[in-house]
Amino acid sequence: MSHLVGKTGIVVRNIKRADSRLIDELPRYGVATVHEAQGRKGLLASGIRPIQQGVVMSGSAVTVMVAPGDNWMFHVAVEQARPGDVLVVAPTSPCTDGYFGDLLATSLQARGVRGLILNAGVRDTATLREMGFPVWSRAVYAQGTIKETLGSVNVPVLCAGQLVNPGDIVLADDDGVVVVRHDELQRVIEASRKRADLEEQKRLRLAAGELGLDIYAMRARLQEKGLRYFDRLEDVED
Amino acid sequence: MSHLVGKTGIVVRNIKRADSRLIDELPRYGVATVHEAQGRKGLLASGIRPIQQGVVMSGSAVTVMVAPGDNWMFHVAVEQARPGDVLVVAPTSPCTDGYFGDLLATSLQARGVRGLILNAGVRDTATLREMGFPVWSRAVYAQGTIKETLGSVNVPVLCAGQLVNPGDIVLADDDGVVVVRHDELQRVIEASRKRADLEEQKRLRLAAGELGLDIYAMRARLQEKGLRYFDRLEDVED
Amino acid sequence: MSHLVGKTGIVVRNIKRADSRLIDELPRYGVATVHEAQGRKGLLASGIRPIQQGVVMSGSAVTVMVAPGDNWMFHVAVEQARPGDVLVVAPTSPCTDGYFGDLLATSLQARGVRGLILNAGVRDTATLREMGFPVWSRAVYAQGTIKETLGSVNVPVLCAGQLVNPGDIVLADDDGVVVVRHDELQRVIEASRKRADLEEQKRLRLAAGELGLDIYAMRARLQEKGLRYFDRLEDVED
Amino acid sequence: MSHLVGKTGIVVRNIKRADSRLIDELPRYGVATVHEAQGRKGLLASGIRPIQQGVVMSGSAVTVMVAPGDNWMFHVAVEQARPGDVLVVAPTSPCTDGYFGDLLATSLQARGVRGLILNAGVRDTATLREMGFPVWSRAVYAQGTIKETLGSVNVPVLCAGQLVNPGDIVLADDDGVVVVRHDELQRVIEASRKRADLEEQKRLRLAAGELGLDIYAMRARLQEKGLRYFDRLEDVED
Amino acid sequence: MSHLVGKTGIVVRNIKRADSRLIDELPRYGVATVHEAQGRKGLLASGIRPIQQGVVMSGSAVTVMVAPGDNWMFHVAVEQARPGDVLVVAPTSPCTDGYFGDLLATSLQARGVRGLILNAGVRDTATLREMGFPVWSRAVYAQGTIKETLGSVNVPVLCAGQLVNPGDIVLADDDGVVVVRHDELQRVIEASRKRADLEEQKRLRLAAGELGLDIYAMRARLQEKGLRYFDRLEDVED
Amino acid sequence: MSHLVGKTGIVVRNIKRADSRLIDELPRYGVATVHEAQGRKGLLASGIRPIQQGVVMSGSAVTVMVAPGDNWMFHVAVEQARPGDVLVVAPTSPCTDGYFGDLLATSLQARGVRGLILNAGVRDTATLREMGFPVWSRAVYAQGTIKETLGSVNVPVLCAGQLVNPGDIVLADDDGVVVVRHDELQRVIEASRKRADLEEQKRLRLAAGELGLDIYAMRARLQEKGLRYFDRLEDVED
Repeated sequence: MSHLVGKTGIVVRNIKRADSRLIDELPRYGVATVHEAQGRKGLLASGIRPIQQGVVMSGSAVTVMVAPGDNWMFHVAVEQARPGDVLVVAPTSPCTDGYFGDLLATSLQARGVRGLILNAGVRDTATLREMGFPVWSRAVYAQGTIKETLGSVNVPVLCAGQLVNPGDIVLADDDGVVVVRHDELQRVIEASRKRADLEEQKRLRLAAGELGLDIYAMRARLQEKGLRYFDRLEDVED
Repeated sequence: MSHLVGKTGIVVRNIKRADSRLIDELPRYGVATVHEAQGRKGLLASGIRPIQQGVVMSGSAVTVMVAPGDNWMFHVAVEQARPGDVLVVAPTSPCTDGYFGDLLATSLQARGVRGLILNAGVRDTATLREMGFPVWSRAVYAQGTIKETLGSVNVPVLCAGQLVNPGDIVLADDDGVVVVRHDELQRVIEASRKRADLEEQKRLRLAAGELGLDIYAMRARLQEKGLRYFDRLEDVED
Repeated sequence: MSHLVGKTGIVVRNIKRADSRLIDELPRYGVATVHEAQGRKGLLASGIRPIQQGVVMSGSAVTVMVAPGDNWMFHVAVEQARPGDVLVVAPTSPCTDGYFGDLLATSLQARGVRGLILNAGVRDTATLREMGFPVWSRAVYAQGTIKETLGSVNVPVLCAGQLVNPGDIVLADDDGVVVVRHDELQRVIEASRKRADLEEQKRLRLAAGELGLDIYAMRARLQEKGLRYFDRLEDVED
Repeated sequence: MSHLVGKTGIVVRNIKRADSRLIDELPRYGVATVHEAQGRKGLLASGIRPIQQGVVMSGSAVTVMVAPGDNWMFHVAVEQARPGDVLVVAPTSPCTDGYFGDLLATSLQARGVRGLILNAGVRDTATLREMGFPVWSRAVYAQGTIKETLGSVNVPVLCAGQLVNPGDIVLADDDGVVVVRHDELQRVIEASRKRADLEEQKRLRLAAGELGLDIYAMRARLQEKGLRYFDRLEDVED
Repeated sequence: MSHLVGKTGIVVRNIKRADSRLIDELPRYGVATVHEAQGRKGLLASGIRPIQQGVVMSGSAVTVMVAPGDNWMFHVAVEQARPGDVLVVAPTSPCTDGYFGDLLATSLQARGVRGLILNAGVRDTATLREMGFPVWSRAVYAQGTIKETLGSVNVPVLCAGQLVNPGDIVLADDDGVVVVRHDELQRVIEASRKRADLEEQKRLRLAAGELGLDIYAMRARLQEKGLRYFDRLEDVED
Repeated sequence: MSHLVGKTGIVVRNIKRADSRLIDELPRYGVATVHEAQGRKGLLASGIRPIQQGVVMSGSAVTVMVAPGDNWMFHVAVEQARPGDVLVVAPTSPCTDGYFGDLLATSLQARGVRGLILNAGVRDTATLREMGFPVWSRAVYAQGTIKETLGSVNVPVLCAGQLVNPGDIVLADDDGVVVVRHDELQRVIEASRKRADLEEQKRLRLAAGELGLDIYAMRARLQEKGLRYFDRLEDVED
């Protein structure tokens, strides 16, 4: 489907959404753990930051490609969104304009949309926080947009360094945003569960004062790589 | 007056301040709405961010031009400021030094100044938040400044991509900062009222589930531009 | 010791820590005041920002040099850290990867480490805030790291534009981070006390409405430099 | 194939390369024209800049995904490259390290590879210019890399905001880099030819002094949108 | 006229152009000297860089305000430009799209326009260099623009941190771009001549080995400020 | 000596300069090779770029610490410089002002100084290129500086992420700048010679078509890490 990346003037009505129970389990693990669990891939660029603190959100991606400075496609996307969806929006060239504000959020919230991932700017941020409509964006900027140029809805988009297909699952928290492929969700959930269990065990041991050097048996390998210990800085030879 | 932009060594004592009732009405509408209402102009660059959250402030601009790394003119400006004013400060070349801290804020607060817009760095941010003295700045940085070089007070300044005249009105909130021309305030307030009313009506309809596509009658124009709907991603021909 | 800057494969076990009563007095003054008090030096670059708000922290620097994208040395450093220490970590080339998360924080907290200064990325930020483990970093990013390449622990490091020696004292608050040399701590504390006293007196006078122009006797020098006052903008000749 | 994006530890030996006559025709049109001709898509981010001036290059993409700070996969990629290929290399998290220098260029040149597109840093740039091995990269930086972590060769990669499949065609010149899908090359060439012809005709008319306003018949639409002409700046009413 | 800054939908036909002999004298002095000579003001932000090397250009500013991603107003501006003019173009919000390429350059060159200052992106840079049409811009980027939204021609614009009025004079070289007010040109030329003469004299003395410390009689003031000389680094007391 | 980092008001007259034959041998190897040869340390940040192309320069560092926007110390430094020296200049907080132009270059050239490394802005770049005075800087910017505040000459400075001691050796080319410790020069030269010899041998083999995979015997380790080869993209299982 990669020939559709960047194609404008297209709206796809039906997307394959993943099992909602699995989607709703993702927030337990958080972005950092899920990213590791799926093999360190799918992370959006670190420039995408939340406008709120302490919110964890997951949902099915309704993807939106927009022209720079033009938010027309948001209105087209609203109609395609369903409860549990998350809008993932990328402009076709870099833009920090404020594509999105409280009116669009009201409309999306009325349709059960959970939040927005936007590789551009957002405005009305105080109101959005009050409404409880979470947004992850590249910028906060009041500069408005126009409605003149077509983009697309529900074609694969490149958003902040990642390919996002319609129906892929996005997970977002204070650390950023990760995308999970529709077909890999089951596997990623399982790997996340395992990883979370392991981390919990390690956490208990570390909290009790055990060292990672011992828990992970690192000492031999460090020595082999040539790590040398000195008692004082003065002892280190040139 | 544009020949005065960038002129140093000048202090102007009296500036034309706008009607305070109008100035105090601006916060009802917020930066994004006022920016739209005045025809999408006057917005400071998105790099100017608040150090606090949830504060909306408006006031008459006392403009200050400072040398890079030199905050001497702040002290000169304090004397020119009156209750209801806001300091708008721009260095003559890019600088992130911490020009402003709690002592200057104490002095300004004692004179009834409402806050600071600064295209440079600020420090003592925790204390400033405690004091309730709001600041919008380009950076937070503890690096201090010196007092060696003259700038100007109450000449037009270029601040974060906008021209600000003394006596222009600034409005700032979590979205950023917008400047309204002194002579346009009445008109902008009226346009903001209308816009806010319209937005409120739209908000109710959108909250009730109506679509922007229908409220704004966008469907025909989208079709005319060539937007095509497909049932499934697989149906999109090359 | 500057020949050790950048040297890899070294761990120094014992560092000279300063008097803990002095270290614990630093937070009273805050980064901005201490930076001034020690002669405007030692400030880390403004890109190092706290992930929490309102925390002031001081401690003895355990310095850690890491390879880009590789957090192996954190585990080595944990063993060298003692209650009251702060980890100061710098990658050898610019990197925003998330070197540090809640497991390492658990381990450091178990050993009494107070917090982390990191010229790279951090993750699990929501959990770190809940744990009360403060972090100042260049980025928040969930991208994990590997454990393949040696760095060093407790050799002098260059972190965000400053040289930090093991045993130097770091002070961090909402304004950023400043490093105080081990040998200068006593002197810096004394200068900070004086400065804080002076500032308190000035604050009272400024709060009472006195002008800095008068308190600091600036008027003569401003006049000498050529500052001119005009009643109205129109009066300023070309 | 999008489930393969970000997958590590994979080398694909055979890729579908496009017709070399078509590939070699692309440089006639240049990046800007080809980008327009294929519908304004496929452009890499503007941060990717040439280290040389005046070179236009096209070729079949051999895609390489590398770990941050680790250039091991370059050596794996060399073996898969054939005359007429171009390496397209993307790290899995942002990195400006100097992955590539004159030795690797020597090896690639020996195999007939035409150049390199690299979303990271390059070094030995003076030698590379002398060798006539063109490079487009995000940075010039001498910081070396290690060889510890697997990436992949010839799986789809995300490079500077674009998806690049193995066998896609890249075109690079002083303006930047554009990727053309393998299946769309024929169509894009045809559209580029037409566009170049049209542009040539327009160029002649414009050079003769005709106005774009007339050639493109813009006057009516500008008037309809409300454009107003005034004789002097003073005539513009408020 | 500052109320016109940011106003859209306006074209002003006649602008006051300065004496062409004065305009043509500016390149002798260069941006750095003229900037000093006019009192260190009027310099565009350092992000505006030439696409060519070694070109010095001056001319009368035809100012153009454009919407982000929309170059329609260029065509309107061409008609207003005369021999000796320079286009100064600023988008109303930050944008790196490639607004300008060889076709528009052909049209401008046909009308005797000398070059372009653009706070956005440019494309066809190789061709522009061949044509000898100089450009100073924020970015090089092949991303094209649309023609949908009105801006203005020959109203005051804010471009890269400076106010530029139609008919102001711009001077650009390898160091960047400076704007000279129409009414100040005579005075600035005279100050530049004097400054250039003085610099030439100083250059001769400095080339002969005299020290700036002596030529500018700095030693006493340095001593007064407390500068201390030591024979060896070891001699510097704490 | 690290307690001297950041100390102002100090000039040290005599610095230990390294053997000039060794210093003059460094350019043969270039920045990238020397950086590797000394163990991948000492590289200045990638933001420091040459204003010219194709120049390789080495010399003894005369270090200069300057206040932001203040180039007074350059004049003090000129007197301390000798033939073969290179000025290494760092402002105490980030600044892009144009500290340095053709007059200072004339003065330095008259004293046999080879060039300048500057973590700030430079101007008169066209003239500097004509004069053959090479500069590596963070920015090109015509904004001038003042002469009001003391810095220091020949105390250790932190410049673009590296500690540079007076008398350390700097090597700069198109790739950037590396600093070599005075005491390590002999060792670094020897390691560079070896490395250059090895690289020459490898270059010949690579030019003859041998693969790095074989020359460096990488195949076994790649396999061990789990690298898998597939004939076609379609063959890669999920």
